[in-house]
Amino acid sequence: MLDTTIDAQVTQFLDAFGEALAAKDIARATEMFEEDGYWRDLVTFTWNLKTMEGREEIADMLTHQLEATEPSGWQLAEGEPPTEEGGVVTAWISFETAVARGYGLVRLRNGKIWTLLTTMAELKGHEEPKGLARPLGAKHGAGKNRTTWLEEREREEADLGYGTQPYVVIVGGGQGGIGLGARLRQLGIPTIILERNDRPGDSWRKRYKSLCLHDPVWYDHLPYLKFPDTWPVFSPKDKIGDWLEMYTKVMELNYWTRSTAKSASYDAESGSWTVAVDRDGEEVILKPKHLVMATGMSGKPRMPEFPGMERFKGDQHHSSAHPGPDAYRGKKCVIVGSNNSAHDIAAALWEHDADVTMVQRSSTHIVRSDTLMEIGLGALYSEEAVASGVTTEKADLIFASLPYAILHEFQIPAYAEMKKRDADFYAGLEKAGFWLDWGDDDSGLFMKYLRRGSGYYIDIGASQLIIDGEIKLKRGQVTEVDETGVILDDGTHLDADLIVYATGYNSMNGWVADLIGQDVADKVGKVWGLGSDTTKDPGPWVGEQRNMWKPTQQDALWFHGGNLHQSRHYSQFLALQLKARMEGIDTPVYGVPETHHLS
Amino acid sequence: MLDTTIDAQVTQFLDAFGEALAAKDIARATEMFEEDGYWRDLVTFTWNLKTMEGREEIADMLTHQLEATEPSGWQLAEGEPPTEEGGVVTAWISFETAVARGYGLVRLRNGKIWTLLTTMAELKGHEEPKGLARPLGAKHGAGKNRTTWLEEREREEADLGYGTQPYVVIVGGGQGGIGLGARLRQLGIPTIILERNDRPGDSWRKRYKSLCLHDPVWYDHLPYLKFPDTWPVFSPKDKIGDWLEMYTKVMELNYWTRSTAKSASYDAESGSWTVAVDRDGEEVILKPKHLVMATGMSGKPRMPEFPGMERFKGDQHHSSAHPGPDAYRGKKCVIVGSNNSAHDIAAALWEHDADVTMVQRSSTHIVRSDTLMEIGLGALYSEEAVASGVTTEKADLIFASLPYAILHEFQIPAYAEMKKRDADFYAGLEKAGFWLDWGDDDSGLFMKYLRRGSGYYIDIGASQLIIDGEIKLKRGQVTEVDETGVILDDGTHLDADLIVYATGYNSMNGWVADLIGQDVADKVGKVWGLGSDTTKDPGPWVGEQRNMWKPTQQDALWFHGGNLHQSRHYSQFLALQLKARMEGIDTPVYGVPETHHLS
Repeated sequence: MLDTTIDAQVTQFLDAFGEALAAKDIARATEMFEEDGYWRDLVTFTWNLKTMEGREEIADMLTHQLEATEPSGWQLAEGEPPTEEGGVVTAWISFETAVARGYGLVRLRNGKIWTLLTTMAELKGHEEPKGLARPLGAKHGAGKNRTTWLEEREREEADLGYGTQPYVVIVGGGQGGIGLGARLRQLGIPTIILERNDRPGDSWRKRYKSLCLHDPVWYDHLPYLKFPDTWPVFSPKDKIGDWLEMYTKVMELNYWTRSTAKSASYDAESGSWTVAVDRDGEEVILKPKHLVMATGMSGKPRMPEFPGMERFKGDQHHSSAHPGPDAYRGKKCVIVGSNNSAHDIAAALWEHDADVTMVQRSSTHIVRSDTLMEIGLGALYSEEAVASGVTTEKADLIFASLPYAILHEFQIPAYAEMKKRDADFYAGLEKAGFWLDWGDDDSGLFMKYLRRGSGYYIDIGASQLIIDGEIKLKRGQVTEVDETGVILDDGTHLDADLIVYATGYNSMNGWVADLIGQDVADKVGKVWGLGSDTTKDPGPWVGEQRNMWKPTQQDALWFHGGNLHQSRHYSQFLALQLKARMEGIDTPVYGVPETHHLS
Repeated sequence: MLDTTIDAQVTQFLDAFGEALAAKDIARATEMFEEDGYWRDLVTFTWNLKTMEGREEIADMLTHQLEATEPSGWQLAEGEPPTEEGGVVTAWISFETAVARGYGLVRLRNGKIWTLLTTMAELKGHEEPKGLARPLGAKHGAGKNRTTWLEEREREEADLGYGTQPYVVIVGGGQGGIGLGARLRQLGIPTIILERNDRPGDSWRKRYKSLCLHDPVWYDHLPYLKFPDTWPVFSPKDKIGDWLEMYTKVMELNYWTRSTAKSASYDAESGSWTVAVDRDGEEVILKPKHLVMATGMSGKPRMPEFPGMERFKGDQHHSSAHPGPDAYRGKKCVIVGSNNSAHDIAAALWEHDADVTMVQRSSTHIVRSDTLMEIGLGALYSEEAVASGVTTEKADLIFASLPYAILHEFQIPAYAEMKKRDADFYAGLEKAGFWLDWGDDDSGLFMKYLRRGSGYYIDIGASQLIIDGEIKLKRGQVTEVDETGVILDDGTHLDADLIVYATGYNSMNGWVADLIGQDVADKVGKVWGLGSDTTKDPGPWVGEQRNMWKPTQQDALWFHGGNLHQSRHYSQFLALQLKARMEGIDTPVYGVPETHHLS
């Protein structure tokens, strides 16, 4: 039978691959890849997130890393028969290294590896206590003066950061810091999460009131604890806030609210940070071994500097500080910018009977939410995907298995289909004067997100208001702000009671400059982007998200975040990197890129 | 192949069964059962929880109910091939009635039905909004003055019970009331849950500090949202408290804390209750159509009346009021009783260096927790069961498919095995003077629980303390209490600084007497028990738990609760019964038992 043949073929191939690696025969192993084949490794060989592109890079990686990695046991993953489609055989695989168990996905074409994904699942001897290995909870037997779970938990909360030091401090308690914190707790890594707000989830609650997640529920799960089947497709912000609050509690995170890191410095000799924290008015000095920035991949608000801004007599603020529409009923509102926040804020103001004008300064990529969900995400993240066995975890790995260098090739046809399906919608937008784009290479939204983290709107209704002229649109550059409004380069004066600068965010290393110093921010360089040499993502090509979830040019400084999918998926690998270090496991890192851009 | 044959056989059988029912040929349908066959119906045919035992009862039920039920579409459940073992063919089935979709399990022996379980899965046209039908959450499109999720939720909380009346009021906000509340919310039934404590979960938090669940995690899930894989096997009480608190929040329940129902009366004419509530000091009158007592299946504490109790100079209280061991270090403590609470409290006092004596007044059934988990629950509720496809929901149905009349037959061999495995342990207990039993018919713990809700201890360590003499044991009856302790019928005087009366609970209709009146309590009668004519479960046989989760002799009054398994499973059927009534669906109830016992 055909399946048996594929099974046997792949098994034979993996045997041969494993033998070549075991024999340290790098030439032989490398030749099992296509000339331009890809190997994406998440932590198992490289102690890094790293994509090797082509035989030369693969051979170089193996030359540096094979000796220490000692891979073995390459086989088909249990219960996952390989499949073939269009000449490509796809197989889930498992393997081991000297210190870890790995899981991966391989695509074979004409008997060679086209793409290989290797990911670390767990460190041997440091497995998470879950499933069969979950804790007992009750302490069976009896003992004098035993403490209860509650007493131990309270003692831990009182002691950590005072009597004992955390191994990790996470700056920022949004979904990124919380998800990573849960992973670290399960791995037994003492961690404190610092959050400036009153409650977990407030970073969502405090945003404009009509905000909902733009990604669907199947894409948004946190680690360990999935949203129930009753959860809405697109979570309202306050509901996500409540979920994060309860998650923080039931996952037993050490989460310091009303706490801000004021300064941090690293002592290379002792290998530890000194972090000065304002904890609800009290100064606490923390001495963690590792510092994780989880302050939001968007980084610091980018406030424009237009001449005359100081003269404006109305309200003006960056979109991140926008309080919502309530105070602006009947007012004239100008939104500078045309991406997600601009659209959301404009629509909410319109709903509250404000007079709204959007100023579009550059082209914007628009996709309708329904269409995106169906064509863009449906195969991996949907009720249908779950029903057909594609769990969220599996979907994450499938997504991760596509090297960034060729990801756009998979995206372009999907966006071509969206463009066709919603042709009338786009015609309407263009007729209304909206300046559309589809990304530099027509690869659409997700590539824009990965490359620059901006430049798009997932339409949930505001576009129709623009088409209908309910939200007025002006194309042009802002040349000046005066007492009563905004002046554009065509001389138009837009009267305004409110100006919202929906002008985006700077690189996350801006937070590093504030917290640690400009020198460290410069050493680490730009955070985010692939080096694709497209708009706002300058080259050279690095093939992974810059500085995210992996070692940086600054020892013991890490960046975590991204959307809910990325936070969930990559927190696993960042947590394992930190755990290995805590346990004194050798972690020879391969290929930390040089810094090319300061921000 | 064999499987195909079984498949075809069962399909053919179901076709014939369906045809007989469709033809209203009760004789033919009844003859498809064994002479002594069982049909357990949860709401689909009977609008009741009811087990028909033997052809005569089955025929009687069909005579009353078939016409209105209009069953059809009997078939093998999708994706569930039938299995055969020891001459018994077991098959998951699906079917429909005029108003509902049903799911069930049938066991065939020699071509006849041995046991049939029919359960209501959902009401047609009133399906829960989950999975593919989950709410969208975000409101796509735009509209003037739309409200957000938070605003609507806040409005609902402010209005319900004041501007609009709930359809259901649940008295008691423990796990029972919370789980049922979640089901009712998903079905769109306006509900208020009344809880006297400050926070959801406090009914756990306030109990003695060493308390942990005695049932393992796989048995304890609430509806919709499962504990994560990282959750301990036996939850510490405060951790369950936190889980319930967050569950109440994220499931959006209308949960009134610091609220007590002071009185309730039913007006048959208008079909509504008047419930006077003290809500944190404010009197609120609620007018629900249905009232659910979820005050704990244990009912009211049963305080004994020993001569001289009023003279005692130390502390004395019922086990339900025991504050924990902290205040009793070095003190002499006498525990009257030898079931779960007595053991737990005794062990915790011993751990805090108290001098502890347990007074055993009657025989007690003891099983070791590990053994119970492995032999008693492992096949249905364990990590292994989950791995082999037995989800918690499936386990619940398998358990429900065993009629109470023969359940003990399945239990007896399991307990015989436990007795054998832990022979040394039991010998040690007897040597220490402990008076053991295995239930009237050696059917063990779960039957004791179902019949009388008492008479056992799941050992997590206290038994060893008794074996070792660390907890002292006295067998006998208490004849008197004096200023300084307890006097037993053999004349022994036990000095005491503390007496804990771990003397159990009365029937739940005691709460009804307090809240509604003795007349209604008497009309409804004893709650719990099967009528097995064994100790503390007087006959006649009723074949289902008396008054639980189903219509009672008092219109619109319901009892909900039980352990976490029962609360989870039966909340589905109670919720569907309430939903049908709210929607005006005809619900002809078959076979509400007469009241034989007042308490």
